[in-house]
Amino acid sequence: MPLSEFQIIERFFTRASGGHDSVVLGVGDDAAVLRGSAEHDLAVAVDTLVCGVHFPAELSAADIGYRALAVNLSDLAAMGATPVAATLALTLAEVDERWLQDFAEGFFVLADRYGVALIGGDTTRGPLTITVQVLGHLPPGKRLSRSGARPGDGVYLSGSTGDAAAWLRLYANPTPGKDDSEYLKMCFARPEPRVMLGRALLPLASAAIDVSDGLLGDLEKLARASGVGAVIELDRVPLSRALLTSFADDALELALTGGDDYELCFTMASEYERQLKATGQTPDCDVRRIGEIVAGQGVVCMDAGGEVQIESRSFDHFGVR
Amino acid sequence: MPLSEFQIIERFFTRASGGHDSVVLGVGDDAAVLRGSAEHDLAVAVDTLVCGVHFPAELSAADIGYRALAVNLSDLAAMGATPVAATLALTLAEVDERWLQDFAEGFFVLADRYGVALIGGDTTRGPLTITVQVLGHLPPGKRLSRSGARPGDGVYLSGSTGDAAAWLRLYANPTPGKDDSEYLKMCFARPEPRVMLGRALLPLASAAIDVSDGLLGDLEKLARASGVGAVIELDRVPLSRALLTSFADDALELALTGGDDYELCFTMASEYERQLKATGQTPDCDVRRIGEIVAGQGVVCMDAGGEVQIESRSFDHFGVR
Repeated sequence: MPLSEFQIIERFFTRASGGHDSVVLGVGDDAAVLRGSAEHDLAVAVDTLVCGVHFPAELSAADIGYRALAVNLSDLAAMGATPVAATLALTLAEVDERWLQDFAEGFFVLADRYGVALIGGDTTRGPLTITVQVLGHLPPGKRLSRSGARPGDGVYLSGSTGDAAAWLRLYANPTPGKDDSEYLKMCFARPEPRVMLGRALLPLASAAIDVSDGLLGDLEKLARASGVGAVIELDRVPLSRALLTSFADDALELALTGGDDYELCFTMASEYERQLKATGQTPDCDVRRIGEIVAGQGVVCMDAGGEVQIESRSFDHFGVR
Repeated sequence: MPLSEFQIIERFFTRASGGHDSVVLGVGDDAAVLRGSAEHDLAVAVDTLVCGVHFPAELSAADIGYRALAVNLSDLAAMGATPVAATLALTLAEVDERWLQDFAEGFFVLADRYGVALIGGDTTRGPLTITVQVLGHLPPGKRLSRSGARPGDGVYLSGSTGDAAAWLRLYANPTPGKDDSEYLKMCFARPEPRVMLGRALLPLASAAIDVSDGLLGDLEKLARASGVGAVIELDRVPLSRALLTSFADDALELALTGGDDYELCFTMASEYERQLKATGQTPDCDVRRIGEIVAGQGVVCMDAGGEVQIESRSFDHFGVR
């Protein structure tokens, strides 16, 4: 749904958590945080995937199962939380054993990778809809959030963005000669949630968000929550070879405004860069500095020639154009 | 879906929680339990309502909002847990501000009654589907479950059953002269989750389940999980005046096999009856002894004339007949 509609909805469900001692962080960040105990706080995230809206009906059951968990683990990653358990609410038009077996396989491949126990669920009949909720642990009083960025902090991005959106564009308009669709498809269907990176960032980053609705838009949310502005240096924005091969002209636009990437965008004082490298979490997931936090508001894109206006495009999910 | 289909699904998603130290109780009870801390364990439940399957499309938004939370709090009640927080995943065909306002009003009426904070959510576009997940606290190591019933325990029921199913039947086949439909409708649309009773039962009951799929079927699940049998004395099964007025001939069958009631069925040694009354939790919610746990297996119904065969009817959700 367009952002304005989300804002309407938020209005009805966001209330002060007054009287609820145990709510540390409520609606509005990547995950909520409940005060747990002397041992840990509890991070909670929930995401729904609707067939035909969040993924094309032709996506394999295994990919759907993987992705339904991945997008939720990405929310925990953005909080710096360690995943513990998940619940699964699965609405199915019909019971197809083969489909279920594949779905479970995709789900558990990722669950096992991060030690996530499936602790409960509900199965109902209806149009294919998957809601996963994940629970994670945080050290008491610690968490990443969107609201801690300060002027002077660097803006960093894991991996690269635009690839998932590129696949959706290829999928919607198949074009002979665009060769890297398999790589791009995996970016959409099997995103790697940046769980280890998020944990490593917990003592280092000042703010973080997972890039699910597009880099520009999500960085804007982070900047707004922090009460600051941001500058992106366009020649530092990473573009994958597959993205450049398939969409030379639109690669940068896709990287800035495409959604479904599930990379982490975070802010950090530059002096922590060496410490982050030393945690060993960056080799298997490239982290690049792409800009800087500044006083003010809004996100400005710069190249060698000065400020560049990016045609602002709010992210639409597949099928809701 | 018919029970057999649920069983198929369960097969794919139920795995030993080996290696997951923090999982006390996984898939298969009313809620899962995670080991929390020295202060409390965490009970987690999730339920999905699909429009046209779990409620008729004509149900008011406020009733839908209330009911979506109520069925989940009922799961926590069956564990003896104290509700703390909820997340809401709302899939909507369109954004209708009036509908959302009413939905939120119904949801928060109940949330406020039990001190439940809405801590997060996700809003997506698609066919109307509501998934609510609730988190509750339990004293460390304590919980009600389905598996503790012992021969000699009494079988108890809160409130009365069959009323919600009676309303669905009236709704499907409007019959002039059936007068109590407003009372019956409230039983369907605004069930009172037995949260206070569940908490009071924590030190007293040997097993508990919430009656969502029909009294007979749910007691059978409890008996199976406990490795025992049960006898129901039919003349002790409570029947509401509205149920008797509207369905004199089928009242008992509806009370035994109708679903959607969200009462608690629990087992307890008789000597605890006085203690339960002393907690003050029974006046606003009648609790009746309706039978006894016996050695063996299965649930047998008895009246003055001996054993009665109840035409076994597995519960079908509205619209899936």
